[in-house]
Parts: sequence; structure tokens; C-alpha cells
Amino acid sequence: KVNGSRLWDTLMEMAKIGPGIAGGNNRQTVTDEDSEGRHLFQDWCTAAGCTMGVDTMGNMFARREGTDPDALPVYVGSHLDTQPTGGKYDGVLGVLSGLEVIRTMNDLDIKTRHPIVVTNWTNEEGTRFAPAMLASGVFAGIHTQDWAYEREDAKGKKFGDELARIGWKGDEPVGERKMHAFFELHIEQGPILEAENKQIGVVTHGQGLSWTEITITGKDAHTGSTPMPMRKNAGLAMARVLEKVEEIALSHAPHAVGAAGHIDVYPNSRNVIPGKVVFTVDFRSPDLSVIKDMETRLKTEAQAIVDAMGMTIDFKKVGGFDPVTFDETCVTAVRNAAERLGYSHMDLISGAGHDACWINRMYPTAMVMCPCVDGLSHNEAEEISQEWAAAGTDVLFHAVVETAEI
Amino acid sequence: KVNGSRLWDTLMEMAKIGPGIAGGNNRQTVTDEDSEGRHLFQDWCTAAGCTMGVDTMGNMFARREGTDPDALPVYVGSHLDTQPTGGKYDGVLGVLSGLEVIRTMNDLDIKTRHPIVVTNWTNEEGTRFAPAMLASGVFAGIHTQDWAYEREDAKGKKFGDELARIGWKGDEPVGERKMHAFFELHIEQGPILEAENKQIGVVTHGQGLSWTEITITGKDAHTGSTPMPMRKNAGLAMARVLEKVEEIALSHAPHAVGAAGHIDVYPNSRNVIPGKVVFTVDFRSPDLSVIKDMETRLKTEAQAIVDAMGMTIDFKKVGGFDPVTFDETCVTAVRNAAERLGYSHMDLISGAGHDACWINRMYPTAMVMCPCVDGLSHNEAEEISQEWAAAGTDVLFHAVVETAEI
Ligand SMILES: NC(=O)NCCC(=O)O
Ligand SMILES: NC(=O)NCCC(=O)O
Repeated sequence: KVNGSRLWDTLMEMAKIGPGIAGGNNRQTVTDEDSEGRHLFQDWCTAAGCTMGVDTMGNMFARREGTDPDALPVYVGSHLDTQPTGGKYDGVLGVLSGLEVIRTMNDLDIKTRHPIVVTNWTNEEGTRFAPAMLASGVFAGIHTQDWAYEREDAKGKKFGDELARIGWKGDEPVGERKMHAFFELHIEQGPILEAENKQIGVVTHGQGLSWTEITITGKDAHTGSTPMPMRKNAGLAMARVLEKVEEIALSHAPHAVGAAGHIDVYPNSRNVIPGKVVFTVDFRSPDLSVIKDMETRLKTEAQAIVDAMGMTIDFKKVGGFDPVTFDETCVTAVRNAAERLGYSHMDLISGAGHDACWINRMYPTAMVMCPCVDGLSHNEAEEISQEWAAAGTDVLFHAVVETAEI
Repeated sequence: KVNGSRLWDTLMEMAKIGPGIAGGNNRQTVTDEDSEGRHLFQDWCTAAGCTMGVDTMGNMFARREGTDPDALPVYVGSHLDTQPTGGKYDGVLGVLSGLEVIRTMNDLDIKTRHPIVVTNWTNEEGTRFAPAMLASGVFAGIHTQDWAYEREDAKGKKFGDELARIGWKGDEPVGERKMHAFFELHIEQGPILEAENKQIGVVTHGQGLSWTEITITGKDAHTGSTPMPMRKNAGLAMARVLEKVEEIALSHAPHAVGAAGHIDVYPNSRNVIPGKVVFTVDFRSPDLSVIKDMETRLKTEAQAIVDAMGMTIDFKKVGGFDPVTFDETCVTAVRNAAERLGYSHMDLISGAGHDACWINRMYPTAMVMCPCVDGLSHNEAEEISQEWAAAGTDVLFHAVVETAEI
């Protein structure tokens, strides 16, 4: 078993970097805080005897050598970046549990045939730069690096420029590494494990996602002196589309979810009827045909809404991935580890996207999940217990060591 | 008659300061651009032989002496501040037409018994610091200066600090000046004069306004892994309230209008269900009982919406004024002037709030309006013709000179 209190201290140490305003974290991707977190992680890895590689997308790879020079490494990891009002565990647990796996192997003097590599993937959250899982997506050949570098944040800053600015654009070409397998431990970010009173989620599938950025153009005008029939209130049109998003997602319940987390209104002045709104609709389902149906209905129904109001609408797909089926051998390794360790467990479909979803396209991949309180995530109040973290890391440790062969 | 081309050149010169992105202006109150515009106006006034007074709210008063040392001045003016994406005429025409009145009096060597004072009122727009007409409101005793100084912009900067920073916090105590009368020329900001093919609006009344800032608190949570029944989507609740705002305003059509121009969503991340929204509802009517009814219904219906969704709501009144009836003598002076000059004219109710609405509480006040293309205002594309501006200024000139007595 791993050292649960050391893991916990390590999590708390990392949480000091980029503190939030309500006990969580604001350590968004490729900010100064992100850079500081990376340095701390690098120092810990070096102290644990690893060598660090950094690729041109800023992905970090801390390597513990194996005994067979020809064996491909077993990778573990997740991401250190957070939401603007994020928790202390989303992503971070997956990286630091990888470090704990290595520390435990050092403690027990375990040697594996395959090397072990702990990874920190850049910009998993996708909040500052859409899409989510950007750098693992480039690694897996989903996006080109040039395209990724051009992604802009709300202030018009480019991902590539910001990565260079914080000093973490590495030399290693992205995506050249080969993997024997990849394992990611993550908090569930949903309520099922806690409700079912299980310690471990064995993730067999992941939902697919579709992000559509919608721009509705009406006409800025005075809120006082513009008669109601002359108005082209883009904010009101958005309100009607948001109601449709809810209706469309509910029509597929419980196999779909939908919401808009990002909304910008222009010029955003109390006495100006909004002339433009930009917002992003997030639809998800484990069923690809449901996602396609929701996308189509959104376009049709939103178009009808703005047509009826005499406005124009523009749809831009800014993120998306298909539902995922994880590798059977890796999934079995996770399930067997939970079983062997005596942890209660159940199979799960991941509600969120993860770097593992992209890596699964290239190499055998699986995920371990641990519960989080009230299923709450993407909230500073996100909480887990030390026991839950330790149990998840124990399972990760066993699955990794088994796969890496002693 | 005034010099229409000189007036136009002066308007175009001012429009160079704080240019917008689409041909209009972004010269928001107490910014560096506002300060630059004030210096230009001051230079012009000095060149026209006026003395300048500045009060502790930054209101500017350019005085041309009268012949009777005991006669109270006739005031004219409006505001030089603009919306973030504002036009070149909203407010500016009212200030620079006052300057043109003085220049014309100088040209014609007209001496009046009452002095003439051209005023630039600070923060009329209320976009950076609510409420609108802030400094004329303090002048008229509606707000205290201390309260006004504490108003905060979206970045938490205080009005009083910003006024001092740009160097326009004057020494003169606010509100001590006495007026014989006040006249304000303004573009209509609505479509009626153009539709009725009239050159001049004789403003008899102004609609009242109510600004309610609404905060809905739901719960930030992951857009992917949070099941639909567990969500507290504050953005969706807002959408439902926005639909109600429209419904409530339309129920009083054509005697009321309503919209929300200001909307902020938190944390505003694509994959976080909005945990909080803050938005401002703007309701207007010429009928006070209609405004009261709309306010009451908004509270009742919005409360019911959030109750049904398990969220909380908070209402804060951030601006408001009652419907206004302008002074009969001043209104008659405007109507007579239009008649005498042979301009087509009609009586109007102002759809927007104006500094004149507050000054009318203290001193005899009236407004002159000129058309604007398509009734469009609070938009960079706001447009008027040189002829319209000149006709409005002619009427202002005659009404002022008559009231100030030759
Ligand atoms: N795990 C996680 O929150 N990933 C961000 C991408 C997503 O929105 O699912
Ligand atoms: N005239 C004008 O746009 N004033 C701003 C206050 C209002 O919103 O009516």
C-alpha cells in the first residue's frame, strides 16, 4: 500500500500555489501559477530519482527507469491546471498519485521491467483556451501543434505565446513517445460512487462531448428610447436558446446532459440592449447518436428562434470528442487490483472528459476513480477524504506495477 | 441662426478623443479620455471668453457674463461621457451646442441680462458607475456626494478616486449654484421624429426608470459529470427571468419597455455550470404606477422561478427616477422658438433619462430634441445630419436668448 498521509501532504502543498478565494484553487493553464506548480512537481520528481522530459506542448514526463532497456514505459498521470474557481483534486490527484506510486516503489525497492513515467498534461481544463485536453489531444494526433498554439484566451493571448512566456515550452517533439499502457486516477466529479458507497470506480467508458460556441447578433440600442417592436435583443434570444438547451438535454434523460457555462454579452452596459452575445453550449452523452441529435436540434431550434426575432446566429464547434471505450486489459488490471486490495468497487462511465480519453486512441488505457463529496467538482468546495485518495492510489499502484511487470 | 458648420466641426473634433472601434466613441466617464475631452472643451470655452468653474463632482460650468449682476444665469448643457460603444452625439451635442450658442452670441455681439452657463455634467451614462445622471443627481440633492464617491465600477474602482486621479475633482461645493432656468438639447435616441418627419421635438415629459440588479445563486458544478436533476444552473434561471422581463414589459405595451443590458456569469467557464449570475433589469414607463407594477411583478415572478429551481435570488435597486413633467414656461419657450424659426416640430416624451430630469426638480427646465437616424443610439453607428444638429441648436439659441433677456 502507498503512503496515504505523504500523498495528502503533497496534495496540500501543491494547493498552496494559485489559491482560490474559497478554499480551492485558481491555477489556470500556462499562467505564472501554473509555472510555479510545475517547478514544485519537477523538484519532487527529481528528488524521487526521476529524469524530467518536457515536450513542445509543455507536457511533463518524469521517468523512473525499468530493468529492460527495450520495454516501453507504463505511463500514469493527469493534469495540474485548474478551473478559475477549481478544486484541489481535479487532475492534481492523478499527477501526485503517480508521484506517490514512484515514491512507494522507491520505499519498497521495487524494480519493474517497464519504466514508469508520471505525466502532467498541459491545459486539460480548456477553460482559458478551448478545447479541453488540448495538449494530450496534440500528443494523440487529434490536433496539430500549430493549431493549438493559435488558440486564444478571452483577452486574445495565444496559447503558444503564453506557454513560451512561462518558460515551459520544452524541446522534445510532441507525440513521439510510445507507451506500453496509460493509467489515470481521477476524482469522479459526480455523485455515483458516494451514493453507492463504493471506494473505487473502474472506468469502462467515457461520455462524448460537443462544445458549440454560438454568436447571436442583434442590434445595440438604447434600453429606454427604443420601442419594444424595434428591438433586436440578443440577450433575450440567448435566453430562449438556453431554455432549448435544457429541453433538448432533458429529452434524452438520463443519457444526456447540457448547459452553457460561458456567456459574454456585448457591450454589457445597463442601458444598452445587448447587440451581441457569445456563449458555449456543452452537450454530453455516452451515446454518439444522442450527441449528434442534440447538435442538430440545437442548430435547428436556435436558428428558428433568431429567425423569428430577426437576428442572425453563427455556430462554431470549439471542442468535442466521441464516447470512449477503454482497453479491456487495462480495465481488468484496475478491477483486479481493487478486488485484490479488498476495496468495494463498481464499473463507471466517466461523465467528464480526461486526457486518458485521447491517449486511449493510441495506447491501451484505463482510469481509476475515487468518490468526491456530493459529486461536486469545478467548484472550490470540491472535497475528498485522505482515505479515498489513498485507496484510489493503492489501486493505481497495483495496476501499474502489475502492468509494468516486476 | 447659429453656425452649423462650425458646430459640426467642433463635434467631429471632440469625436477624435476616445475613438471607438466602429466609428463611434468610447470615452467613458472619469477615464483618461474623459479628461482629455474636458481639456479640449475648457480650451474652447476660454477662447470664447468664458470663465470655467469645476465642482467637487467634476461638473464643469463655462460662464458668459450678463449685464445684470443680480440676475441668475440661464444654464444649458448635457454630458461629454459616452457608452463603451457609444455614438458621437449622445450628450456631446448638448454640450457643444451650448458652446455654439455662446460663440454665436459673441459673433452677433448679443448681450443678455442673465449670464449664460454651459455645463458638462459628469457620468450621465451610468455605464461604468451606476446610477446614470450621477453628478446632476448629486447637484440636485438626490444623492449625497459621499455616496456617489463610493460607487464602484466592475473592477472595484471608486468613482471619487477615479475623479481625483484624472484631475477633475474641482474645489467648488456641488449644488450651490442657483439657476434661472436650464435647457438641454439632446438627440432623440428613438425613432419618432424621423418617422413623423419633424425637425424638432419639444420635450414635455420624460419616462421614469427603474434599475434592479439581480443576483441568482445556484451552484458551480461540472457540466459533464453532474446529473441533470442535481444541477442548480443559475444561467438557466436567469434565462427564465429574462423571458419574464420581456413578458412584463410587453403586457404594458406601448407604455413600457424592459431589457437587461448587463449580464455577468460566474465563473464563466465552458465546463462549469454557472453558480452565480448578476444582471441588471431596466424597466421604463412614463407612468409611475406602471413602473411600480413592473418592479413588483419582477420580484414575485423571479422569486417563483428560482424557488422552483431550488436557488436563491437577491434584488438591489441600483438606479431609478420618477417620470418627469418639464416646466411649462421653458417648454413654451422651446415650442415658440421652433415655431418662430419655421422648423417642423412636435411634443415628445423622452424615452431616456437626462441630466435635465434631475435639474427640473430644482429649477425651471426644458429639453429640445433633434432626430437621429433609425432612432439608433447607444451604438457606435448612431448618426445625425449637420442640418438636424443646426436646427436643434437654433431652437436652443432662441429659447436661451429669450429666457436670458436681451
Ligand atoms: N475532468 C475534467 O473536468 N475535464 C475537463 C474537460 C471536461 O469538461 O470534461
Ligand atoms: N440619454 C441617455 O442615454 N442617458 C443615459 C441614462 C439612460 O439610460 O436613460
